[in-house]
Amino acid sequence: MNTPSPLELTSFFNTLCDAAAKETLPRFRTKVTIDNKEVDGFDPVTEGDQEAEKAIRKLIQEHYPNHGIIGEEFGRHNEEADLQWVIDPIDGTRAFISGLPVWGTLMGLYQDGKPIAGVMDQPFTGERFMAVDGQANLSCRGGESERLSTSAVKSISNATLLTTSPHIMQTAANEAYFMVEQQSQLFRYGCDCYAYSMLAAGQVDLVIEAELFIYDIAALIPIIEAAGGVVTNWQGGSCANGGQVLAAANAELHEAAMKVLNG
Amino acid sequence: MNTPSPLELTSFFNTLCDAAAKETLPRFRTKVTIDNKEVDGFDPVTEGDQEAEKAIRKLIQEHYPNHGIIGEEFGRHNEEADLQWVIDPIDGTRAFISGLPVWGTLMGLYQDGKPIAGVMDQPFTGERFMAVDGQANLSCRGGESERLSTSAVKSISNATLLTTSPHIMQTAANEAYFMVEQQSQLFRYGCDCYAYSMLAAGQVDLVIEAELFIYDIAALIPIIEAAGGVVTNWQGGSCANGGQVLAAANAELHEAAMKVLNG
Repeated sequence: MNTPSPLELTSFFNTLCDAAAKETLPRFRTKVTIDNKEVDGFDPVTEGDQEAEKAIRKLIQEHYPNHGIIGEEFGRHNEEADLQWVIDPIDGTRAFISGLPVWGTLMGLYQDGKPIAGVMDQPFTGERFMAVDGQANLSCRGGESERLSTSAVKSISNATLLTTSPHIMQTAANEAYFMVEQQSQLFRYGCDCYAYSMLAAGQVDLVIEAELFIYDIAALIPIIEAAGGVVTNWQGGSCANGGQVLAAANAELHEAAMKVLNG
Repeated sequence: MNTPSPLELTSFFNTLCDAAAKETLPRFRTKVTIDNKEVDGFDPVTEGDQEAEKAIRKLIQEHYPNHGIIGEEFGRHNEEADLQWVIDPIDGTRAFISGLPVWGTLMGLYQDGKPIAGVMDQPFTGERFMAVDGQANLSCRGGESERLSTSAVKSISNATLLTTSPHIMQTAANEAYFMVEQQSQLFRYGCDCYAYSMLAAGQVDLVIEAELFIYDIAALIPIIEAAGGVVTNWQGGSCANGGQVLAAANAELHEAAMKVLNG
């Protein structure tokens, strides 16, 4: 299967982002319909989530009928294809529901199980973080565009650390996470995909999370790597299928955090 | 001392916000100079913080030389005046440093110790939350303006709860806070003034914090109240001087949360 060219991919990502934003943005800051995905917990699914994924899947199926799709809302399609689009139409549903502009639409492209390109779109602030062909850029509604590059912070004690919430981790992971948090200069909770985008932009230095799904991280791996960062699981292996994620601004900081996480 | 008319106040708030944004926005998403305010903790002060407050103070002193000023960075001026401007040039410095658009410029006007008007400006997203003469509005860069009104959620179990961080609370307060958190439908950390703005906008239902300074809450009280919310300390008294703050979408939810907070 032929990989789309960088130019084609950039253009198609923009088309997908615009189509998703038409479904998400009008529903942001309204009183959304919230379904209860889980009986025990509170895992909201918005109408925007579902409609945005439908719009994205429709475009992919029209343009690349042989490609595969892995979507948060509607599962897998063409599972055997070597090119797979991995979609989270609204990553950060809780932020979305709370009116906070730190959610995003995530779309990654995998080739033979490896992330090769990705986009994180935040249509309320008008920011689009995209990695294609090993280059990561942030383009803004106003038209400005800048090359993304991670920070040079090399020690945890000088690092700013973000995580969505330590509450979602198992006890042992939680304790390991707190070892890093205690050493960090500054930490903050509650950002989902926006945290990784700020890492790629050089604004924060570490993001540590656990229990992610493939579609939570797929789009972000190419963005972080193209910006100069290192993103793996807590043991240094691939996090392309989700699970525990350690993203750092550079190899030295990644190594330092991995040591602490593994006691 | 004459209170400025609503029209004059609205216009002057806009002037102040624009002047502050000229100092904050160009420094957002750059590598800012960080001073260490405290020896023990990490309490960053950005250059933007200081320059924005200077710009605000200069305008107030030019327009209202007899009014008082209480500013986060440069303290008190004309302490005896019955009209006092209470300023936090960048509330949410940690968000600012991390590149997250949930900080804001806060300016409140007190008359005889009571908050009568206020504004929260977020210049990156282009949102301005303002309360003057008992009316609260959100105006956006695009020119749209909407009347703010809080939600009708009346029970904690249906409520979305925001707090900046339970870490900043003393142990007893922390435990009381967690009693509410456990009962809430959804909670999130890390929003500073943006949390109260989302409460006024009807997006979230409860904000609970502790150990606030006067300039952290001054501007927000009139916005919350004009939008239909109730904001007090945890015992139901005034929080106009800071301390513990309980902000709720309506009186019923406020009462319910206050009961839990006080065991």
